[in-house]
Amino acid sequence: MIKVAVDAMGGDFGPAPIVEGVIKALEARDDFVVTLIGSQIKPLIPTNLLNRVSFVESSEILEMSDHATDALKRKETSIYKAVELVRDKECHAVVSAGHSGATMSLATLRVGRIPGVNRPAIATLMPTVNKSRVLVLDVGANVDCKARNLYEFGIMGVAYAKEIMGLKNPRLGIVSNGEEDSKGDEVTKEARELLRNLDAFKGNAEGSDIFSGEFDVVVCDGFIGNIILKTAEGATSAMSKFIKNEVKNSLLAKFGALLMKGAFDNVKKYVDYDEYGGAPLLGVKDCVIISHGKSSPKAIKNAIFQALKFANSNIENIIENRLKEQSGNLK
Amino acid sequence: MIKVAVDAMGGDFGPAPIVEGVIKALEARDDFVVTLIGSQIKPLIPTNLLNRVSFVESSEILEMSDHATDALKRKETSIYKAVELVRDKECHAVVSAGHSGATMSLATLRVGRIPGVNRPAIATLMPTVNKSRVLVLDVGANVDCKARNLYEFGIMGVAYAKEIMGLKNPRLGIVSNGEEDSKGDEVTKEARELLRNLDAFKGNAEGSDIFSGEFDVVVCDGFIGNIILKTAEGATSAMSKFIKNEVKNSLLAKFGALLMKGAFDNVKKYVDYDEYGGAPLLGVKDCVIISHGKSSPKAIKNAIFQALKFANSNIENIIENRLKEQSGNLK
Repeated sequence: MIKVAVDAMGGDFGPAPIVEGVIKALEARDDFVVTLIGSQIKPLIPTNLLNRVSFVESSEILEMSDHATDALKRKETSIYKAVELVRDKECHAVVSAGHSGATMSLATLRVGRIPGVNRPAIATLMPTVNKSRVLVLDVGANVDCKARNLYEFGIMGVAYAKEIMGLKNPRLGIVSNGEEDSKGDEVTKEARELLRNLDAFKGNAEGSDIFSGEFDVVVCDGFIGNIILKTAEGATSAMSKFIKNEVKNSLLAKFGALLMKGAFDNVKKYVDYDEYGGAPLLGVKDCVIISHGKSSPKAIKNAIFQALKFANSNIENIIENRLKEQSGNLK
Repeated sequence: MIKVAVDAMGGDFGPAPIVEGVIKALEARDDFVVTLIGSQIKPLIPTNLLNRVSFVESSEILEMSDHATDALKRKETSIYKAVELVRDKECHAVVSAGHSGATMSLATLRVGRIPGVNRPAIATLMPTVNKSRVLVLDVGANVDCKARNLYEFGIMGVAYAKEIMGLKNPRLGIVSNGEEDSKGDEVTKEARELLRNLDAFKGNAEGSDIFSGEFDVVVCDGFIGNIILKTAEGATSAMSKFIKNEVKNSLLAKFGALLMKGAFDNVKKYVDYDEYGGAPLLGVKDCVIISHGKSSPKAIKNAIFQALKFANSNIENIIENRLKEQSGNLK
C-alpha cells in the first residue's frame, strides 16, 4: 500500500483546497493512504475516509518570502515534516504546493540525490498540438547550469518519459535559439555535444517546437524553463483576454461564443495545468511532487495520482543505472 | 526627403511580396523615396511610381544557410549593397527581410556602432493585454551577454520607447524567473544592479509580465529573447489549433465560430506581426529594420513606415548622450 505525505499548509489558499483534493483522490482510488501534515486538519476529513488518513501536527508554514536555504533550520514547518516522513521511510512520496525552492532543498539535502545526479530538476508537462504531452526540465531552481547538468536532465527526462509516461522511444531536445547546430549559447552548445551520446536525442528545440509534438522531453536550465512556462502562460492568457474583449463588444460574437462554449471548455481542459497537477522532482531518491501554490483540489488530486505512478515505478534505479552507463561521456 | 533602401531579394518568397509591400507604402505616403536592391525589379513597379524608385542591380543572395560572418566578403549580395547605401549616406534607412545575423553583422561593421554601444540589439514589439505594445530586446544574435550589454539594451530601449513609440515615462524591466530581487541567473542579477541607475527601471519581468502591460520595454539576452518570441508564437498557435480542432468536431461550434469570425479577425489583427512588420536594430549609427523572412507585403509596408519614423527622429544622438551620461555607472 503506497503512503503519500501531503503538506496541507503549503498552498497559497491555506489547507482547504489541498484537503479537498486529497479527499477527491481517496474517493477515486483505494490503493493508497495519506498522511496529512498541518494544523487542525482532522475535522476536515469525512469520517468514512479517516481509516486511510493519518495526521502529523504542524502549524508553522514556510512562507514564499522565506529563503529556501532557511528550510533546513525550520524543523517545525509542515514542509520539513512532510519531507522527513519520506526520509524516514514512513511514506513513499510527498506532495507539496508550498515553497518550491524549499521543497527542492529539503528533498535534495534530507532525502538525498540518486547516485550520479549532481542537481535534481523540476520537470513539468506541457500540452502539444498533437494532444500529447512534452516534459520540460528544469523549470526549477537551477538557474545557472553547467553542460553536465543539462546532460543529466536529459537522461532523467528520458527515463521518466519511458517509465512514467509510457513512451517507448521518447524524443529528446535541448532548448535553443534555432534548429541549426551553430545555434545556442555556450552552455547549450556544450551540452548538445554530450546529449548526442543518447539515442533519444534529436537536436535543438526552438521555443515553438516545444508545443509542436516533435519532442517528448526538452531540457534547459531552470532560468529558461521558468521563462518558457511563464511566457506560454502569459501569451495564451493574453489571447483569451483579447477574445473575451471582442466578444464583449459584439452581440453576434456573444452568441457565437455561447455556441462555442463546449469547444472552449474542451480547449481549456486540455491546456489546464490541473490535469496533471504537479511537477516531479527528478534526481532525488524518492518521489517528490511539487504543485503550484494556487493548486485547485483537482490539481492536488492529480498530483497525488502522479505520485502513485511514480512510487509504483522503478525510476530511481533506472536513472541511477543510466547515469552509470553514460558516465564515460563526462570527463 | 527620406530615402529608404530595401533589399528586394532577402525574403523567403523572393522579390514579389517585398516589392508589393514597397508599392503599398509608396501609395500610402509621399514623403519618401525608395532604392530597391535586386535583380529585374524595375518591371514590377507601376510606371506612375517610377519617379520615386531607383534601382541597384544585384542578383546574388545571401542564403539563410550561409554564415553571418561571410556577409562581409560577399560584396555582390543584395544585403551588402543595401547596407552600403546607408553607409555611403545615399540612403537614410535600410529594410531587409534577409539573413538577420548577416544584416546585423554588416550594419555593425559597415555602418558602425553609436559611440558607447558595445553590442547593437534587435528590438521587437509584442502585444500586451492593455492593447499597448512592449519592446523586447535583444531578440537577435547576442546569445552570450554580459551585464553591461543588458544595461545598454535598457538605455537604448527606453530611448526608442520615448522617441519612436512616443511614451513619456516608459517602464523598463529585465526578464527574470521571479519578481523578487533574489531571482535571476548571475548575469541578470548583475545587470539589474546597473539598471537600477535608470529612472525607468521597474524591476524584474517574469515571462507572463511581458504581455501584462506592466512594462513598455524589457531586456534580455538574444538567446532568451528568441526563446520568448518562439514560445509565445508556439503557445498561441497551439491554442488556435486546439480551437480549430474543436470547431471541426462540432456543428454547433462551427456555427458559433462563424458568428465569431469578426471577433477572431480582430484578435488576429491585433497579435499580427505584420502590423509593425520589422524589428529595429538599435545601437548602430543609422536606421536598420530587420523583417521576418516570411514577411507579407503588409509587413514590408509597415517596416518601411517604421523606418520613416526612425529616420525622422534623433534617436542615435539621444542614445549616444544617454550612454555618455550613464557611463559613470560602469566600472
